Amino acid sequence: MTKYVYLFHEGNGKMRELLGGKGANLAEMTNLGLPVPYGFTVTTEACNRFYEDGEKLSDEVIEQIFEALAKVEKQAGKKFGDPDNPFLVSVRSGARASMPGMMDTILNLGLNDVSVEGLAKKTSNPRFAYDSYRRFIQMFSDVVMGLEKSKFERILDRDKEEKGVKYDNELTAEDLKQIVKEFKEFYKKEKGADFPQDPKEQLLAAVKAVFLSWNNPRAIVYRRMNDIPSMWGTAVNVQAMVFGNMGDNSGTGVAFTRNPSTGEKKLYGEYLMNAQGEDVVAGIRTPMPISALEQTNKEIYDQFIKIADILEKHYRDMQDMEFTIEEGKLFMLQTRNGKRTAKAALKIAVDLVGEGMRTEQEALLMLDPKQLDALLHPQFDSQELKKAQVIAKGLPASPGAACGKVVFTAEKAVEFSKSGEKVVLVRLETSPEDIEGMAVSEGILTARGGMTSHAAVVARGMGTCCVAGCGDIKVDEEKKIFTTKDGKVFREGDYISLDGSTGNVYGGAIKTQPAAIVGEFETVMNWTQKYKALGIRTNADTPRDAIQAVKFGAEGIGLCRTEHMFFAEDRIPAMREMVLAKTEEARRKALAKLLPMQRGDFIELYEAMGGYPVTIRLLDPPLHEFLPQKEEEIDELAGELGISVDELKATIKDLHEFNPMMGHRGCRLAVTYPEIAEMQTRAIIEAAIEVSKKKGVNVKPEIMIPLVGEVKELEYVKSVVVKTAEKVMEEKSFKLEYMVGTMIEIPRAALTADEIAKAAEFFSFGTNDLTQMTFGFSRDDAGKFLEEYYNKKIFEQDPFAKVDQKGVGKLMKMAVSDGRSVRPNLKCGICGEHGGDPFTVEFCHDIGLDYVSCSPYRVPIAKLSAAQANIKNPRK
Amino acid sequence: MTKYVYLFHEGNGKMRELLGGKGANLAEMTNLGLPVPYGFTVTTEACNRFYEDGEKLSDEVIEQIFEALAKVEKQAGKKFGDPDNPFLVSVRSGARASMPGMMDTILNLGLNDVSVEGLAKKTSNPRFAYDSYRRFIQMFSDVVMGLEKSKFERILDRDKEEKGVKYDNELTAEDLKQIVKEFKEFYKKEKGADFPQDPKEQLLAAVKAVFLSWNNPRAIVYRRMNDIPSMWGTAVNVQAMVFGNMGDNSGTGVAFTRNPSTGEKKLYGEYLMNAQGEDVVAGIRTPMPISALEQTNKEIYDQFIKIADILEKHYRDMQDMEFTIEEGKLFMLQTRNGKRTAKAALKIAVDLVGEGMRTEQEALLMLDPKQLDALLHPQFDSQELKKAQVIAKGLPASPGAACGKVVFTAEKAVEFSKSGEKVVLVRLETSPEDIEGMAVSEGILTARGGMTSHAAVVARGMGTCCVAGCGDIKVDEEKKIFTTKDGKVFREGDYISLDGSTGNVYGGAIKTQPAAIVGEFETVMNWTQKYKALGIRTNADTPRDAIQAVKFGAEGIGLCRTEHMFFAEDRIPAMREMVLAKTEEARRKALAKLLPMQRGDFIELYEAMGGYPVTIRLLDPPLHEFLPQKEEEIDELAGELGISVDELKATIKDLHEFNPMMGHRGCRLAVTYPEIAEMQTRAIIEAAIEVSKKKGVNVKPEIMIPLVGEVKELEYVKSVVVKTAEKVMEEKSFKLEYMVGTMIEIPRAALTADEIAKAAEFFSFGTNDLTQMTFGFSRDDAGKFLEEYYNKKIFEQDPFAKVDQKGVGKLMKMAVSDGRSVRPNLKCGICGEHGGDPFTVEFCHDIGLDYVSCSPYRVPIAKLSAAQANIKNPRK
Repeated sequence: MTKYVYLFHEGNGKMRELLGGKGANLAEMTNLGLPVPYGFTVTTEACNRFYEDGEKLSDEVIEQIFEALAKVEKQAGKKFGDPDNPFLVSVRSGARASMPGMMDTILNLGLNDVSVEGLAKKTSNPRFAYDSYRRFIQMFSDVVMGLEKSKFERILDRDKEEKGVKYDNELTAEDLKQIVKEFKEFYKKEKGADFPQDPKEQLLAAVKAVFLSWNNPRAIVYRRMNDIPSMWGTAVNVQAMVFGNMGDNSGTGVAFTRNPSTGEKKLYGEYLMNAQGEDVVAGIRTPMPISALEQTNKEIYDQFIKIADILEKHYRDMQDMEFTIEEGKLFMLQTRNGKRTAKAALKIAVDLVGEGMRTEQEALLMLDPKQLDALLHPQFDSQELKKAQVIAKGLPASPGAACGKVVFTAEKAVEFSKSGEKVVLVRLETSPEDIEGMAVSEGILTARGGMTSHAAVVARGMGTCCVAGCGDIKVDEEKKIFTTKDGKVFREGDYISLDGSTGNVYGGAIKTQPAAIVGEFETVMNWTQKYKALGIRTNADTPRDAIQAVKFGAEGIGLCRTEHMFFAEDRIPAMREMVLAKTEEARRKALAKLLPMQRGDFIELYEAMGGYPVTIRLLDPPLHEFLPQKEEEIDELAGELGISVDELKATIKDLHEFNPMMGHRGCRLAVTYPEIAEMQTRAIIEAAIEVSKKKGVNVKPEIMIPLVGEVKELEYVKSVVVKTAEKVMEEKSFKLEYMVGTMIEIPRAALTADEIAKAAEFFSFGTNDLTQMTFGFSRDDAGKFLEEYYNKKIFEQDPFAKVDQKGVGKLMKMAVSDGRSVRPNLKCGICGEHGGDPFTVEFCHDIGLDYVSCSPYRVPIAKLSAAQANIKNPRK
Repeated sequence: MTKYVYLFHEGNGKMRELLGGKGANLAEMTNLGLPVPYGFTVTTEACNRFYEDGEKLSDEVIEQIFEALAKVEKQAGKKFGDPDNPFLVSVRSGARASMPGMMDTILNLGLNDVSVEGLAKKTSNPRFAYDSYRRFIQMFSDVVMGLEKSKFERILDRDKEEKGVKYDNELTAEDLKQIVKEFKEFYKKEKGADFPQDPKEQLLAAVKAVFLSWNNPRAIVYRRMNDIPSMWGTAVNVQAMVFGNMGDNSGTGVAFTRNPSTGEKKLYGEYLMNAQGEDVVAGIRTPMPISALEQTNKEIYDQFIKIADILEKHYRDMQDMEFTIEEGKLFMLQTRNGKRTAKAALKIAVDLVGEGMRTEQEALLMLDPKQLDALLHPQFDSQELKKAQVIAKGLPASPGAACGKVVFTAEKAVEFSKSGEKVVLVRLETSPEDIEGMAVSEGILTARGGMTSHAAVVARGMGTCCVAGCGDIKVDEEKKIFTTKDGKVFREGDYISLDGSTGNVYGGAIKTQPAAIVGEFETVMNWTQKYKALGIRTNADTPRDAIQAVKFGAEGIGLCRTEHMFFAEDRIPAMREMVLAKTEEARRKALAKLLPMQRGDFIELYEAMGGYPVTIRLLDPPLHEFLPQKEEEIDELAGELGISVDELKATIKDLHEFNPMMGHRGCRLAVTYPEIAEMQTRAIIEAAIEVSKKKGVNVKPEIMIPLVGEVKELEYVKSVVVKTAEKVMEEKSFKLEYMVGTMIEIPRAALTADEIAKAAEFFSFGTNDLTQMTFGFSRDDAGKFLEEYYNKKIFEQDPFAKVDQKGVGKLMKMAVSDGRSVRPNLKCGICGEHGGDPFTVEFCHDIGLDYVSCSPYRVPIAKLSAAQANIKNPRK
């Protein structure tokens, strides 16, 4: 028979999976001999069983609960529903991973019309007993029966008004007795049945409610955001109540063994005398700092300090503890590894190594790579922020802080920034033509679009702060103003500030501070360098990005998207001329204009990267992306090109595609127009020769051919590249090493990797497209149904954020192994946006990739993830 | 050292791969002791070597050619370039598979200013010698040097005019001598060099030209159409010339051992006295039927009859033979298994079994499944035909009925057919450049040429209806008109109809009737039923299609696309109401209107299929496909729905997708709007119950959920389907067997087949979408670059016509094996358009599918392919 219920002393700290974090820690504390109220844990397996049985508690589980209850009653010397000495319990959820605020708690369970009198007698405090009862009715009705708490609050408020009192604690026992009566009447009216009087019935209903809360929408969203599988389930902890509100020698509090905000090694916390836990959290009374306890109750304080020290040493980590003092006696209700800011996390990790409590490897494993993000973007000056006024709120699309003058067009952004002004680009939504304006902006604010809108994706790639989908503002791009909900108008040139981590938009300027890797951050980064096996590269299209990435520790460029360079204002005309060319000759003429610009870009990029390898992808997007869409722009372009508007429109229409994602792009362009690949290769090689000569370094470009699905495509384009490269080297009398490889981003490329590897010197997984093709949905369109997928638990993860290991990952694994079967030294990397996701980095390590490439601002995250992966699963 | 050159007697009939079909058969005939002019074959390996060496003949190959030449000269007792007794050869291509008209032939090679005199002397026929020389110059200049034949024709025409003669044979030896001079002068002017006088140089140039012609655009198109890999290469046959044009006791002809049009067991062919091969094929003079030879030269005729019999018995198949009579002596120049019409192929196969020459299995393997297509096309409606007016009569060159608009060029044929027009291509005579235009035409009508003319041979191969040599009409290709004998003028775009079985040409359009399976066709179909292992189903959305398919032998419906039913005029309003519904309630209201229509459709379909299984796919296309696009339609719809045009436009815009192929469609619709799946399930089950009750058959619907990529999608939609089905069965108090399965059309579905098979009772490969996703290009957009892919030999096959075995096929194989690992009896089928392609059917047999499903008109083709697959690779 499966054991579904564990008394605290039957468990231990290693049983997190079964008992949940809270249950395991209660067991561990019990076994350490610390003062923990008696209780038991209903396991996560019982939760899964509950769902398997169609949301029913099986007889087996119920039986084990009551058996455990009987034992705990015996330990406590009290009985459920006893009219003289009633046993009361708290019921709390506790999942394997901490999910604060996601699950629901019920206190004082066991109270009914009879036991409330017992409690009154036992404590000689009828006021306390009836206050506890009315709290319990309220909490139980809310959490278990779905009757909103606020409806009870309204009754309470009405009664207080009638009595002419302001605070709850001014109500007398008789008042509270009356309120309990009204609460029960209200309950009966709403639910059509009496408030349950049987404590056992109350207990089972509460356990069931905790299990059900595992699948409430907040919990699902939280799990998705934190990569917690729904199959884990939650445990339920049933524990004897201790009361912090039994008088002035009772109290309750929360404390951390170190400062969770700074990491400073000093007990940190607060407490309230004569209060229950909810009072501390509710913020009605102001709690005291934990240090004050030393003055008021030194004995308890010393005992607590000792326990805190035992727990930190035991867990070898900063602890977050809850305690209650019942009539002068200390009880520990919870301990767990405390949540902490990124800054504190780094300091604690480094300190624990310094204190000899953890090895460097262990300390690295304690860190959450994602958390570093907070340290990698400019931050607002905290003093100035206090004075700032939030004027609107949107989606936190790309983290960081930004401050600048409002502009409404990409052109203006460029113009302002050229004259040294910092700007925030405000748009209804952005499009590829805005790219240059976006690149020079401090921040981007859009009124429309979600977390995966163009603005959001590009901003994240650039590491630029972005607030997207800000419906609070009305943007009038023609008049160049935007208006907030309360009617404030902002014009071009006005200052605003954005917080891309919260979605807040502030009126006026707030000073910002740039990110830097110093102090403990630097120490930790040095450790990662020591322990990682994967190379860490960056996706960078501009020298600015490249320099930033090197500062953050990048060891090369894994993806330079050459097309981004063509959207610049001074280049797009030549690019459009090329796109619209009717003959190869005309195309070559336009390409000749682009050549020096492209060469210049590469020179700057190579110089920024010193001797590090630079992977350059040949032109990828469908050509129609370079053409204007708006009437006036079309008119203008037709004028420039000296052709009729109708002719231009016809050409644009001709280039239209039904499914541009699956259209004429990638290497398909080079197959049709090899002269484009020729020009790009020439620029790549000429620039490399120039920088090699000038700087005396060996620039080693890696030319990457995108969207290959068949080896003959690669062979064809490779032959164009190689022929051109050889020609350039001969012209310049300079021999250069270079590589030609391919993106693996089409399922067929992964499936035929053994053939493709014969022609490719390296593979780079383009997991954005590979994910789209493997799942058969486009990122632009999936927004319409993915929300429903999360709601219905069909997807638990966003496959565009974290590589789908079952499908996409299977293809990757297959491709690496098949590719290396014919070319054992095949260099393999990843350059999709997934490259900065910790889970994906670990997966890439495990399947034997040589490097991951991510946006500059994800480089330290990727490095930490890579080190963790290699510590967990060392590479031979 | 590799042997690149084989004398005829060194080879044999089994060496097709090395010697090509023609070479192998010449060797075989030589070994059978038949009168074959001496010669040798340069192998296909030499062709591949030629391309590997950068389109150069290696010294090794050249050496072997000259060695063989010396031996053949010795056999013939003549010498290359001999001024007294010159050795002349023909140079012909010969690939492994027959490629009529695709490769080039050169006759009379070895003639120069010296040897022409030798030939004149030896034959005492200077006229003949100079006529041969001028033909050789013309042919060599055209084929080897790329100087158009027509330019020489113009010189010839001018000279004839000057001399006042009409026919070539009226020119004297002196005239021809003069013409040779002019030809050579013209050659020198155009090429800047003298016409090559060295016969060995001529020979090598000719060999090279044949090799190069393997990759001319016509050959590439032909190979793609006929699934011939480019790596096969072609062989070259060099053979001593024999002359059919040495006088009235010389001649040349072509004959089949059985009638290639009907299959009748009777020698069939034609010949021309005093002519070379090209004269017969060109169709300038009208040849005599072979039977006439019996009267004029019984001895030769009897000898030929005997040889024909030997060859047919030897090859156990109908032979297509070329022969030449040189001054009363018979020479065999070629034999091969004769091309035949589908009708003839069936009759010959059945007859050969009847004659004990072949087993049923062998006879089945002789048939080309694709060819059956010709018998599956509609025939003229006999009633309409009575009223139709014959405007001309030609040769019944390729059977079937055709009706379409007249076009006069291959380009126009392609252009018209692209815009959905049916066309009949009308030409003076066709040439290999017309091949693409011929492929898209319903029928072909030529004014010149016989039953073995280019038009006739190619049309029969394609199964396209053809009337050839129709002297009744005058074609003016320039003016784009043709005129009948009684002066009726037909212009481009006018309708005509052709009967390829009678040679009748009708003015105007004649309705056509479907084909039927009777006679030998029925016999063969009965054999396929006996020998196949695969089930054959059909894709049918309407009772009409279903009935047709059952007539053709379908054993169930593999795909019924429910959405096709919604486009009908009386249904689209309710469908649009559903699409535009803003609430579930409104959607359910619209769905309630659709339910009875959908149920009615299924009732008809089940009734048409009797007890056969019917697979019904739930709604698949993106909803915006059901909305109008044109302004006036939008206005109208807004009026009908009582909403503003702007509101409707906003909704349409909102439903717009960037990549509809990868958007909100398939099971994603049912996840978002489960009520659609509910309605469809209800219709499916209610209809099945009604038909089961009424007809007393057990209707067993197979409900198919499309576009699944993740098992939880399937589980979710399946639960909706099952819940609804159970409910309906309870309502109707009727228990019905039904299955729920899924399409495998998303790469991830194939990759996670082991998970998906846990929920799916059957898999059906949707290879259209699977191909698109696996290759990462959409069929709608790929047209823009695929042409270039064929030209550059990156693709040799259309992956939408024939399953790509390396990529898509790998996924299929994986899915079948992984799926059956968890559900051993998992039913697997294919329902993409590939299901009717013979290669794909064989592949499906080999990977263990249970059935293929294809369009009704492909059912017999699939059955034959399935039988062949199981004969080649029997299933245990």
